[in-house]
Amino acid sequence: MIPVSPIAWGPGRTVRILDQTALPADERYRDLHSAEEMAEAIRSLRVRGAPLIGIAAAMGVALEADTPGGAGEEDALARVRAACRVLGATRPTAVNLRWALARMLRRAEAAVSRTDLAAGMRAEADAIAAEDRAMCERIGELGAELLADGATVCTICNAGALATGGIGTALAPVYVAHAAGRRPRVIVPETRPLLQGSRLTAWELTRAGVPCSVIADGAIASRLRRGDVRCVIVGADRIAANGDVANKIGTYGLALAARVHGVPFYVAAPSSTVDPATPDGSRIPIEERAADEVVAWGGHRTGPVGVPVWNPAFDVTPAALVTAIITDRGVHAPAVIADAVQPLVAGG
Amino acid sequence: MIPVSPIAWGPGRTVRILDQTALPADERYRDLHSAEEMAEAIRSLRVRGAPLIGIAAAMGVALEADTPGGAGEEDALARVRAACRVLGATRPTAVNLRWALARMLRRAEAAVSRTDLAAGMRAEADAIAAEDRAMCERIGELGAELLADGATVCTICNAGALATGGIGTALAPVYVAHAAGRRPRVIVPETRPLLQGSRLTAWELTRAGVPCSVIADGAIASRLRRGDVRCVIVGADRIAANGDVANKIGTYGLALAARVHGVPFYVAAPSSTVDPATPDGSRIPIEERAADEVVAWGGHRTGPVGVPVWNPAFDVTPAALVTAIITDRGVHAPAVIADAVQPLVAGG
Repeated sequence: MIPVSPIAWGPGRTVRILDQTALPADERYRDLHSAEEMAEAIRSLRVRGAPLIGIAAAMGVALEADTPGGAGEEDALARVRAACRVLGATRPTAVNLRWALARMLRRAEAAVSRTDLAAGMRAEADAIAAEDRAMCERIGELGAELLADGATVCTICNAGALATGGIGTALAPVYVAHAAGRRPRVIVPETRPLLQGSRLTAWELTRAGVPCSVIADGAIASRLRRGDVRCVIVGADRIAANGDVANKIGTYGLALAARVHGVPFYVAAPSSTVDPATPDGSRIPIEERAADEVVAWGGHRTGPVGVPVWNPAFDVTPAALVTAIITDRGVHAPAVIADAVQPLVAGG
Repeated sequence: MIPVSPIAWGPGRTVRILDQTALPADERYRDLHSAEEMAEAIRSLRVRGAPLIGIAAAMGVALEADTPGGAGEEDALARVRAACRVLGATRPTAVNLRWALARMLRRAEAAVSRTDLAAGMRAEADAIAAEDRAMCERIGELGAELLADGATVCTICNAGALATGGIGTALAPVYVAHAAGRRPRVIVPETRPLLQGSRLTAWELTRAGVPCSVIADGAIASRLRRGDVRCVIVGADRIAANGDVANKIGTYGLALAARVHGVPFYVAAPSSTVDPATPDGSRIPIEERAADEVVAWGGHRTGPVGVPVWNPAFDVTPAALVTAIITDRGVHAPAVIADAVQPLVAGG
């Protein structure tokens, strides 16, 4: 059912990741041995997608708690804390990363022995992954109810299996509808600069047998004008308390075009993506990445040497443009998202 | 003053073009010997830009009228007619191409001898190029009056010197303001799939000493939201009688973002780009180009093998989103564009 699993425990004390920078040409797996190696994999986008980097960071922390040798409990706990710092500094926008690390640290500090610490870290990382998988399923079920049979859906970037521990967030409703024989189709903007749309989303949809069509990002507005796209579904890297949504650069322009053409604009994300501590989108830190992501390609320069580049990895779509947010807890109006995903049990 | 000249007569009976597919890495010139070679150069975008392909087609026709050997007048006229057919079939959207070829054919049919035909073809092509150069200057002067000192302008694709016989259309106001010491700056969306923004516009602006900044196309809406872009100026491949504008794919999304953020949206084009025979944008033929422009890059695949791609080269921006159209005749409301550029003399 899950088209591809981008992360798993590897042989010995390792985490095996699918190197997403090599797709679609190569399906290449790497075994990572430490939190530092995991941090490199997250920074370089070998592992990416807000839910997945939460899982990956948790597994990276667990590697440090499980390293043989060294001194006693204190030493292992210090390694876990250092791992949380290194991994927490990799990418600023996705809240899932901070959320997963905070959860790992809480569990580590509750450990009663070094053995308990190592086992607890692995169990906590497994729990985060299992919960994410379940949240993806639930998002898929809830979102699929919004899709008419044979519906054409437009997305952006990759919020699919490659971005999560399960069947994805934005693509989850598509996979559930496809499994039910309801023949969804997907319009995939290539998503510059790093082409997560054409390289990753089109790849995993094709692998799963879901028909899709790739377009340049500049063709989004024209494509929505044609009138046959039934809805847009995108993922999210952070959802502010007021319902503003940070997601891949290009999402805001897609939301504007959807509004103009009367196409519903849904955001699909696990409830862990909602950050009640961020009041609105203006307070979400937006990562700016290197110029060469835009003006170089496989060793070839695509712009004049030294030309300035503005390369934000994310943008913020105001809540007013969001039709609804689909989480594992339900389908919510953006204005009530913070209340809708409140912990079910106080302190939970 | 003109930052670069993309076309000129070459040695012997040739036309020398700057091969724009090799920019920005190589400034490579090619000497073309026939209308067929010119047609290949236009189809493959070695020569591109609506005004420039009109000039290039005219020069390509002139090559055929000037070939030594062959029979008499009838034979030369037949070659000219064949050249017009071949060149006219290269690209469907830009009206300048058809306009220039119609003009060449009229002059050819008026020729009184084979010598007159050869000289007339060369003179007519020269006249088309000289008029285009003058129109660019005039567009620059008129457009520069709309720019505040130090203004930041956003464009798309390349409507600069590389697209015309002069200082460009959309970039002409920028060059005129720059020459007057008024320090304009330009935001340059890279313009996928073929990157005419980063490869061509950023290259010629940098060469001319105009500060610019490259962004991914998906960053356009976020960039306009920042509030410091004073206006958008784009070129056009065809302007319908009602003021609808066909231009590079991505222009429509840019126009939507400009409207939402209160940024004036100007179209700059020679009056030859207005096609009174096309009532509105829905009647403009939109060229669809090969899938590999989107999902392959320098021999590398960027999407799964065989994935469907929708790759329109142009889109249509409705007149309602256009603040004004800047032509060599003046600055016009889009609704009156057809009347505004009427031939000044009946039948002229």
